[in-house]
Amino acid sequence: MALIEIPASKGNAALVKKGQSVKLINTHGTQVVDLWAFNSADSSEFLSFPHTHTQTEHVIPKIGDVMVTNRRRPILTLVEDTSPGVHDTQCAACDRYRYELLGVTGFHDSCSDNLTAALSALGLTASHTPQPLNTFMNIPIDENGKIAFKPTVSKAGDYVVLRAEMDLAIAFSCCPQDIVPINGPDCTPVECHFEIA
Amino acid sequence: MALIEIPASKGNAALVKKGQSVKLINTHGTQVVDLWAFNSADSSEFLSFPHTHTQTEHVIPKIGDVMVTNRRRPILTLVEDTSPGVHDTQCAACDRYRYELLGVTGFHDSCSDNLTAALSALGLTASHTPQPLNTFMNIPIDENGKIAFKPTVSKAGDYVVLRAEMDLAIAFSCCPQDIVPINGPDCTPVECHFEIA
Repeated sequence: MALIEIPASKGNAALVKKGQSVKLINTHGTQVVDLWAFNSADSSEFLSFPHTHTQTEHVIPKIGDVMVTNRRRPILTLVEDTSPGVHDTQCAACDRYRYELLGVTGFHDSCSDNLTAALSALGLTASHTPQPLNTFMNIPIDENGKIAFKPTVSKAGDYVVLRAEMDLAIAFSCCPQDIVPINGPDCTPVECHFEIA
Repeated sequence: MALIEIPASKGNAALVKKGQSVKLINTHGTQVVDLWAFNSADSSEFLSFPHTHTQTEHVIPKIGDVMVTNRRRPILTLVEDTSPGVHDTQCAACDRYRYELLGVTGFHDSCSDNLTAALSALGLTASHTPQPLNTFMNIPIDENGKIAFKPTVSKAGDYVVLRAEMDLAIAFSCCPQDIVPINGPDCTPVECHFEIA
């Protein structure tokens, strides 16, 4: 079990066999990590939160929840979570359009571009950027359905463990968001790590 | 302004010019209508709720909310809503996989197939079925993030009006769900209507 780095503001991906587990570690505790999964034999089948919501009846996955694809087949089960369980399934991956709207001119890393690059390194493509599991992202929803953007509440070394329910490609992006303080109040993206067992 | 029918358990779609308004009427009050919108010049750009959530900071669109595409450009504004405002953006369109899991053997209409057929009639295709705006669908989320499937709370004749913010194709499906009582306790899908002004 070698620790694999997800560099600050960048992505990474790996092939995982059915039955293997993926441990994603929030090395510094402050970092949001976008997570996607694709059927490694057919990337038009992917982890889908609209379908998962219907199946698990939970907005945010809880331990034991079996997440499903856009064909409603099991793809990942959340088996461990040492963080307070605060993750997000409401907000799209950041992309160049998000940074343009935030006033950035010129290039800015984005989770969406990181997904494209990470999949490409495995020889895979995606028709679009599916809704990620935004691990450790703190997006509270109040009783009126109002969303807020808050810093993570995880601590250094917190991790989630996910079991692969099919042969899949898992992709991560250490969110490069440095304007809205989702990666901690100092808005400094940092690296995280994962391992496959 | 001619009333156009969305037949029970079926779909329909229309081209709408920027600035025109679409009025969707829940004719019998009990029917969930899945709604999608696509840039009519490039269907790889579509109404996206993950992007809209980030932009509006509301889980369910409220009057005045400008919904955006996967390129974060305005596509539809909710300008009127005579219903109690109970709609859904959490659950995927139903599809053959959903009905298989509910025990259906053989063919069953689905919102996902209805979208494909309705777009096809306009000469358009979609790479996948985006998360719809499930108008009038009553999917309460409790304080623990638990989702429930409840009958609609709209009354006969309730309507929403949406303004097109770009030239677009709008597609609807009168949800054919007749097993889970989202379309009223008697589980009978019925027709709805829309008009373009």
